[in-house]
Amino acid sequence: MVRFMEKGLFITFEGCEGSGKTTVSKYLYNRLKEEGYDVIYSREPGGVDIAEQIRAVILNVRNTAMDPRTEALLYAASRRQHLAEIVLPALKAGKIVLCDRFVDSSLVYQGYARGIGIDKVWELNQFAIDDCMPDLTLYYDVDVETGLSRVRSRGEMNRLDSENVEFHKSVRKAYQMIAEKYPERIVTIDSNRPLREVEEESYTLLKKRINRYE
Amino acid sequence: MVRFMEKGLFITFEGCEGSGKTTVSKYLYNRLKEEGYDVIYSREPGGVDIAEQIRAVILNVRNTAMDPRTEALLYAASRRQHLAEIVLPALKAGKIVLCDRFVDSSLVYQGYARGIGIDKVWELNQFAIDDCMPDLTLYYDVDVETGLSRVRSRGEMNRLDSENVEFHKSVRKAYQMIAEKYPERIVTIDSNRPLREVEEESYTLLKKRINRYE
Repeated sequence: MVRFMEKGLFITFEGCEGSGKTTVSKYLYNRLKEEGYDVIYSREPGGVDIAEQIRAVILNVRNTAMDPRTEALLYAASRRQHLAEIVLPALKAGKIVLCDRFVDSSLVYQGYARGIGIDKVWELNQFAIDDCMPDLTLYYDVDVETGLSRVRSRGEMNRLDSENVEFHKSVRKAYQMIAEKYPERIVTIDSNRPLREVEEESYTLLKKRINRYE
Repeated sequence: MVRFMEKGLFITFEGCEGSGKTTVSKYLYNRLKEEGYDVIYSREPGGVDIAEQIRAVILNVRNTAMDPRTEALLYAASRRQHLAEIVLPALKAGKIVLCDRFVDSSLVYQGYARGIGIDKVWELNQFAIDDCMPDLTLYYDVDVETGLSRVRSRGEMNRLDSENVEFHKSVRKAYQMIAEKYPERIVTIDSNRPLREVEEESYTLLKKRINRYE
């Protein structure tokens, strides 16, 4: 039996590398699905062909001459297309959408860490998302050392992981600033604790929000 | 002998298809060069590798699912990269930059003709150009029928040309609105006249602006 929502619900998951956001969001997806909710899990570019093409330009290692603003514009373009093809139709159909990273990642990575400015990247992303802000954002806050050691233990090293501890510290600081700025939308979850505790708290928060809409 | 400017000068050329802007801007480039000015002629994406990659995504005929806002973001990204790699270094070196199409084309084509809204596309492009507005924009105003017949006589048919007369009318109307809105920056040139007259008027206007800076 599928449990229909009166309207769709848009939940995003944010945090540094190794914060547990991906593991927890997938756990929540499975649990809600078992309970019969019409829920989808996605992350940009999410298999959307045009968004994948845009990401290929961003991640092309030959593109060392890329200007930081070009990069921010391309992330916003990829976001827009993912939104248009995946998120908006799902919300319109009354589904719960769980999205691993969204606009806050751009505020943190392009706005703060790359130095463009959080406000400017926020303005840019308003154009891309056109009022489709998340109903709820769960931010997984973790000590930089704990986060990085989790990433290393997984054997994953991508472009962000290879940056230094200082970079991760500034990312965490930016997330904390943004969470403070938007307390209505963003809930901070202490992700230094054991995974089961983090999953349970996330589930409780999410169910509370779902019950408000059902 | 190269004639140095105290600071660079950024001139853009705008108009419908068949308005003569490309012919005239190339004429001005050659004439200024003969006079010894340090001048460059460019148009987006202008051979800039990253901007070309972005354009390839926009123009990929398979990408029929592209959202209008994605398209506007990609044009802005391509513009930013062309600016960062070609225009800004040239201006910094004190050169005159003649650019065939710039921000006003986005206001007209994405903002007005595609229906996103001129103000919203303006805001988006402020992020891309980051205060590097043209010192002068020459807008070549031509009757829709005259413009289209010129395009047809050249045997050129691209995506825009194949759209109907109504589309071209709305493009012209948008250009006229924008020219009215920014009278300090944009000068309208009647391009229904013989080419030689249009070139002479353009040259006179441009030289007047150069003399103000020299």
